Amino acid sequence: MSWAEVQTRSELYRGQTVRNVTNISRRRYRQGAGKNRRPGTDRIMQHDKILDESDGIKVKVDSAALSNQRQAPTDFSNIYSKDLLPASGGEEVTKEFLQELLNVLLGYICKTNQRSTKVLDYHHPHQLKEGLEGFTLQLTDQPETLEQILVDCRDTLKYGVNSGHPRFFNQLSSGLDLIGLAGEWLTSTANCNMFTYEVSPVFILMEEVLLKKMQDIVGWSKDEGDGLFCPGGSISNLYSILVARYHFYPEVKTRGMRALPRLALFTSEHSHYSIKKSAAVLGFGSENVIVVKCDERGKMIPVELESSIIAAEEKDLVPFYVNATAGTTVYGAFDPLDAIADICHRHDLWMHVDAAWGGGLLMSDRHRMKLKGIERAWSVTWNPHKMMGVPLQCSVILIKKRGLLQECNELGAEYLFQRDKPYDVSYDTGDKSIQCGRHVDVFKFWLMWKAKGSQGFGSQVNKCLENAEYLYDELQRRAGFELVFEHKPEHSNVCFWYIPPSLRVLPPGPERDAKLHHVAPRIKHRMMEKGSTLVGYQPFGDKVNFFRCVFSNPATQQEDVDFLLNEICQLGENL
Amino acid sequence: MSWAEVQTRSELYRGQTVRNVTNISRRRYRQGAGKNRRPGTDRIMQHDKILDESDGIKVKVDSAALSNQRQAPTDFSNIYSKDLLPASGGEEVTKEFLQELLNVLLGYICKTNQRSTKVLDYHHPHQLKEGLEGFTLQLTDQPETLEQILVDCRDTLKYGVNSGHPRFFNQLSSGLDLIGLAGEWLTSTANCNMFTYEVSPVFILMEEVLLKKMQDIVGWSKDEGDGLFCPGGSISNLYSILVARYHFYPEVKTRGMRALPRLALFTSEHSHYSIKKSAAVLGFGSENVIVVKCDERGKMIPVELESSIIAAEEKDLVPFYVNATAGTTVYGAFDPLDAIADICHRHDLWMHVDAAWGGGLLMSDRHRMKLKGIERAWSVTWNPHKMMGVPLQCSVILIKKRGLLQECNELGAEYLFQRDKPYDVSYDTGDKSIQCGRHVDVFKFWLMWKAKGSQGFGSQVNKCLENAEYLYDELQRRAGFELVFEHKPEHSNVCFWYIPPSLRVLPPGPERDAKLHHVAPRIKHRMMEKGSTLVGYQPFGDKVNFFRCVFSNPATQQEDVDFLLNEICQLGENL
Repeated sequence: MSWAEVQTRSELYRGQTVRNVTNISRRRYRQGAGKNRRPGTDRIMQHDKILDESDGIKVKVDSAALSNQRQAPTDFSNIYSKDLLPASGGEEVTKEFLQELLNVLLGYICKTNQRSTKVLDYHHPHQLKEGLEGFTLQLTDQPETLEQILVDCRDTLKYGVNSGHPRFFNQLSSGLDLIGLAGEWLTSTANCNMFTYEVSPVFILMEEVLLKKMQDIVGWSKDEGDGLFCPGGSISNLYSILVARYHFYPEVKTRGMRALPRLALFTSEHSHYSIKKSAAVLGFGSENVIVVKCDERGKMIPVELESSIIAAEEKDLVPFYVNATAGTTVYGAFDPLDAIADICHRHDLWMHVDAAWGGGLLMSDRHRMKLKGIERAWSVTWNPHKMMGVPLQCSVILIKKRGLLQECNELGAEYLFQRDKPYDVSYDTGDKSIQCGRHVDVFKFWLMWKAKGSQGFGSQVNKCLENAEYLYDELQRRAGFELVFEHKPEHSNVCFWYIPPSLRVLPPGPERDAKLHHVAPRIKHRMMEKGSTLVGYQPFGDKVNFFRCVFSNPATQQEDVDFLLNEICQLGENL
Repeated sequence: MSWAEVQTRSELYRGQTVRNVTNISRRRYRQGAGKNRRPGTDRIMQHDKILDESDGIKVKVDSAALSNQRQAPTDFSNIYSKDLLPASGGEEVTKEFLQELLNVLLGYICKTNQRSTKVLDYHHPHQLKEGLEGFTLQLTDQPETLEQILVDCRDTLKYGVNSGHPRFFNQLSSGLDLIGLAGEWLTSTANCNMFTYEVSPVFILMEEVLLKKMQDIVGWSKDEGDGLFCPGGSISNLYSILVARYHFYPEVKTRGMRALPRLALFTSEHSHYSIKKSAAVLGFGSENVIVVKCDERGKMIPVELESSIIAAEEKDLVPFYVNATAGTTVYGAFDPLDAIADICHRHDLWMHVDAAWGGGLLMSDRHRMKLKGIERAWSVTWNPHKMMGVPLQCSVILIKKRGLLQECNELGAEYLFQRDKPYDVSYDTGDKSIQCGRHVDVFKFWLMWKAKGSQGFGSQVNKCLENAEYLYDELQRRAGFELVFEHKPEHSNVCFWYIPPSLRVLPPGPERDAKLHHVAPRIKHRMMEKGSTLVGYQPFGDKVNFFRCVFSNPATQQEDVDFLLNEICQLGENL
């Protein structure tokens, strides 16, 4: 159908005062609730419906407002994507389509922030694949109407997981920062690519500003510091090893690993698996990653590091790289950075700090001393998409020695990085990267910094850590909970077991452990089915499955901590 | 300021019928034009202003509509990000803030689609860093108001490059697909992470659907095929080498490259630089990437490939991997895939096809035969963010042999990939990846497919190639242009020189070439200053700087092709 025809149909509406009320699918993306719900979900569905209806009123008012200009709201059931811009005359329909989308997204955003909304509406893979209430994932040759597209948008959100919900404790990244969201919407509207200043002048300069800011906060001098925004912390850690290798053995770039001695990397048993994975990818081999022991709080033991280095040398390995973790994934532990820096200095090793999770604490005057010594690192990973609440993806690799990143990775493709441009081509940073095209991850972060100031990030971090302390206190106060380690949390991770009444009579030991191992998965299973909250669990070393609760969402309050603990008790008391 | 105070201020407005007209900064994000423009940009600025004012009227109508509910539009000059959700009572201000943002973005989207708008408003790095008309990139400790945030959003768009403009021919990815944009807005609102089904059930299944769809289109059987969405084509190409290496030498994962023979990779001189870059990253060394000669159209010469393989073996290298390109970056050439597959089969080599740019042609019945033989590849890179117009980033690596990707990369971190989950954990695809967290790149693509159908993508591709053919015809028809190679374009790349009148009197040869080399950069420089259109140039091999025009934006029409050629003539005639 051409746009001219759409307008003709639109004319038809102008004489109508009431739209066809039997057009149910037309309103699905506004009103949400359908029929044929799964048994057992009625209560929540009912709630959904109420919320949706109240949203619906708001939407109707907005639509009525639009209709002052167009007489009747657009009927998207006859309009297709080809009628949107750049189609000739597509401006109005584009505005109305994005307005309707905004209404759907606003409805979701408001609901996500309501505690009475479910965190998730769980379905098994086969259920979603078979299609639920007309929501089908399958793709066809023929186009669907914009109405169906809006319905699909609504359904996609409905069957997803609300990682922005105040009671989502499952992952290190959570929350939904509205300024960050605005930044992402603008980023995708600009649809730019980070390779050159020529096509992304503003974003390239924002990257420079943010990298300098972060280097300054880490504590490097004005003459030091380089970096890049990367697609996630694992890739940032990969860069640290890549650049370290090039620093000691620049011939690797042309001649490969076979020209080098057998190199060894060191990282703690509590560190992130991306160190080992990157070592495999880069051709070191995972067996050349030496795992260093930690103390009971998950911190690397410096003497263990030094003896591991010496032992490796005795086996004819050549140590060159140490990863220290500032905020481990499970315990939230901070390795003793100064002591590790001393060892690296003595043995002339590259010191990397993986502060993907802990870096955010640098923003807080109260907590930044936990990363003391980070200024001595040669490279740092820091993920603003974790503790600082920036929407995914937003990760940074910082390299102390300027120029190394460029030398290590540049190949100088002339179709992209011409030298005869009319500006200073040192701003064409794309050849520092192992990517070619690179998504703009900086803008949302820049905008959040503008909106909060450094201070705002600091307060946000403090609040998350207060929640962790509150949980720690509550776990000690309440019956039926045991801490995995007996120390006030350093970061916002709190690790604990729930001991159901039936196990409380057993003494600690292998028999109780065998049973306890199944408790967290069973509670989690029930939690997912109920959808009321979400928290992670895992075994670690010789410790059976325990819960790990993490706080990075500023929406979370103490009442949510109480809710989580009550929920665990209720779901687990008969186990 | 608390939300209560905001409401109090809001009350104050209710008695006012006209808002304070001296509040200039308040309206900057709506009306755009300020004072103190740079000399020489007045005409465009004037035009901007007109557009902004007409936008302004629309905005005022919308705001008036909102004010039916709230009496007066919100004054964001007293509201901060902390007043937005999750702040208690933050719903209304959140809705109004995102509504205002939508108005800013809609204004940009409509202008981008207007040919009278500039493609870019060029400023040198130092100008943008110094700050223009109050737009400063610097970040402070204190928060800014939401009004300033909206002003910053508007300014960020203003000083950026409109890659969605119908006259932007500079990069392989261009255009602004409105459904893709809607998909990105939803993706960032959902803010999910692709590691597990547990936290991204819908997106994980959509990835499965799309990967199967693409494998089917490539021509693999139902029993074959695996893959992942990756952050860009370079990383997808890196995966192909990584998995190929693991396929032949699984011990590399634990023991590293030193346990392997000296391996050789083969790729054409016209192929993308990411093959060489990835070989350096993965520890092969760039000197072990053997560059195979191409014919005059940029296609790999199969006999050259085979003789290179034999020559490498004679030097004790072990060939294992061949990259064939389907759609080279500069010429848009398609390597002869069937002939290359025959050679790979004879020598038992991994055959990868880098169809990052050319993959889109598989969607067109008219053009898909150009990739004949791709079904014989062991892996394929295909970037929907290029020829299919999906917003950045959207790239896919497809691997024919199922399970290899998982085996190659899995490390089984138990805090993420527990085996005792209540669902089929084969849907936890995160351990296939070299990332840990992974951005959701699939949804926008899924939504576009729903909205266009396979057919819609086919028509879009056909149209871009028709534009290329039109340009090719025009270049032959018009005086002063020379083609870089004398063949009808296979893809949408068209490479040509503009010969200014002063050079037309010179015979082809070194003297003319030396002068011609400076023509494209100078025209491009003038083009950037004027901001009317944007096209790329580069030298290649023994060929001096030439223009490369590429079509991937469905908004581009033949009139834009004419405009480009007229503009080049006008900007270059006195050179």
